[in-house]
Amino acid sequence: MRRQELACDDPALFREAADRCEVGCLGLVTADGTPRVVPLNFAALDTTIYFHGALAGEKHDLLRGGARVSFLMALPYSLIPSYWTAPQHACPATHYFKSVDARGPCTVVEDLAEKARALQALMLKYQPEGRHRPIDADDPIYLKPLRGVGVFRLAVESWTGKVKFGVNEPERIRRVLIAGLRERGRPLDLATALEIERTLD
Amino acid sequence: MRRQELACDDPALFREAADRCEVGCLGLVTADGTPRVVPLNFAALDTTIYFHGALAGEKHDLLRGGARVSFLMALPYSLIPSYWTAPQHACPATHYFKSVDARGPCTVVEDLAEKARALQALMLKYQPEGRHRPIDADDPIYLKPLRGVGVFRLAVESWTGKVKFGVNEPERIRRVLIAGLRERGRPLDLATALEIERTLD
Repeated sequence: MRRQELACDDPALFREAADRCEVGCLGLVTADGTPRVVPLNFAALDTTIYFHGALAGEKHDLLRGGARVSFLMALPYSLIPSYWTAPQHACPATHYFKSVDARGPCTVVEDLAEKARALQALMLKYQPEGRHRPIDADDPIYLKPLRGVGVFRLAVESWTGKVKFGVNEPERIRRVLIAGLRERGRPLDLATALEIERTLD
Repeated sequence: MRRQELACDDPALFREAADRCEVGCLGLVTADGTPRVVPLNFAALDTTIYFHGALAGEKHDLLRGGARVSFLMALPYSLIPSYWTAPQHACPATHYFKSVDARGPCTVVEDLAEKARALQALMLKYQPEGRHRPIDADDPIYLKPLRGVGVFRLAVESWTGKVKFGVNEPERIRRVLIAGLRERGRPLDLATALEIERTLD
């Protein structure tokens, strides 16, 4: 069986996924042993992933005890239609992507200064233009909100990365895909073409 | 505590998430009890969710026994900056969304005709322009590929939906957000403005 996806452990992939993925997916196991997936905004400081939520409810209850979690950061790229490379078969249709699956224990952050750093990192990621007072535990306008919000810390102990950009395809096919993407010109197509070009180097 | 997200059990939300979400997130529990999240293309026929993958490996091994899984279909909408409604506080910054979390047992599809229906549904979703021979178990060009691919069936037994479009905000604030979104005009902003408008009806 050919490998359809290429394992990638380049730290730059972790950084890119943490910076560009807007909605991460937290994998939890509930008390009765069934899985649960929670979509979240998040920010990473080095390899610590922070997100916020209520100081009550299922997520808080499951994380209070330091549960081991999984956190998926997916970056979808272009959809590749079958007919660029096959006149009849549907099989070549695929979706290129990068993804990082991070694992480790997740705990509730109690320290107000760490809460503030985490939330300020979220603001820098999602509102890079600023236009707010920096979130700081010493700023009186933030004291009550910092006390009332739940902030969660995932200390990443291991992660696996995947990238899929047609590395198993013959060079001739990859050149057809690059040409098709450049001509089609949908939002992610140029970025996808550049990634395929990197596989040809 | 105010509700930040509105539970929604409208079947139209399930249909919309299944049709528009390109990458669903499958939540699994591995043999050692830790969670795992797998990003997947998928298609739903009524309330049965289908996806494909290898006939070997961790996903196949975990699903072969009819594991109970969770499947998240998230539809992110616009990011809302804090400064549209607050001159100093960062707190109003948020991200609007719709999401559906579906649960049920997941099994491996053995029947070639069902495999073909599932894969044809994926083609209709991701390549609606067609331009391939329809995937059909009676078409000889598809016989070998259908035997070689793994197709998985999640029979949805229950699901929960959430929508977040500022329904707890005063009408005055929602009107400010609608105006900001219409002026900013990023790709999802008009759709988000329309969803907020629906909360005012």
